[in-house]
Amino acid sequence: MVALIAIYKAPENKSEFDSHYKDIHSPLSAKMEGLKRLEIAHVKNMLTPPTSTIAEAPYLFCTMYFEDQAALDNSMRSPSGKAAARDLMGFAGPLVSMVTAEVEEIAL
Amino acid sequence: MVALIAIYKAPENKSEFDSHYKDIHSPLSAKMEGLKRLEIAHVKNMLTPPTSTIAEAPYLFCTMYFEDQAALDNSMRSPSGKAAARDLMGFAGPLVSMVTAEVEEIAL
Repeated sequence: MVALIAIYKAPENKSEFDSHYKDIHSPLSAKMEGLKRLEIAHVKNMLTPPTSTIAEAPYLFCTMYFEDQAALDNSMRSPSGKAAARDLMGFAGPLVSMVTAEVEEIAL
Repeated sequence: MVALIAIYKAPENKSEFDSHYKDIHSPLSAKMEGLKRLEIAHVKNMLTPPTSTIAEAPYLFCTMYFEDQAALDNSMRSPSGKAAARDLMGFAGPLVSMVTAEVEEIAL
């Protein structure tokens, strides 16, 4: 599994951000081609002091899971991926950082 | 569901970090009381420029899922939680940021 992870800085206007995220962006993301799972983590507390990687508590993490890197690449190039990206840049361009990652589930 | 998310900055010695993580830290984390799922995301690429939220690509995300906040709190106070925290501070204290979050899965 690979994931596209979006990390959002706290917006100035949280209720406006939250409404757009829930009503517009999240449904657009959910339509992305090849998406296997979509998970949103709403940050509550930061337990550690700031570091050079995380200078302040993020506001939200969004993790989009795909079968493999090819599926993620295809999705980002697809019309559904482009629509989600266009919306993202419009409402949260300066707030978002994105990384790709190889995901491993550890047996308990 | 709530999650305890650990975000690691890239270590100086990656192979030493990776070995300790895989052989010692990950098994200790997997034993944490009340843990429902343990997922590790090994970052491959950062797609966006540095921002004040993420100044440089993290090296690894670890997401620990619990039923609710009480289960997470209990786990962190339990001997298994303290053992994992003690190990973490010993090998990666200055590298790690930790947040708690409310997790929402979006229907596709």
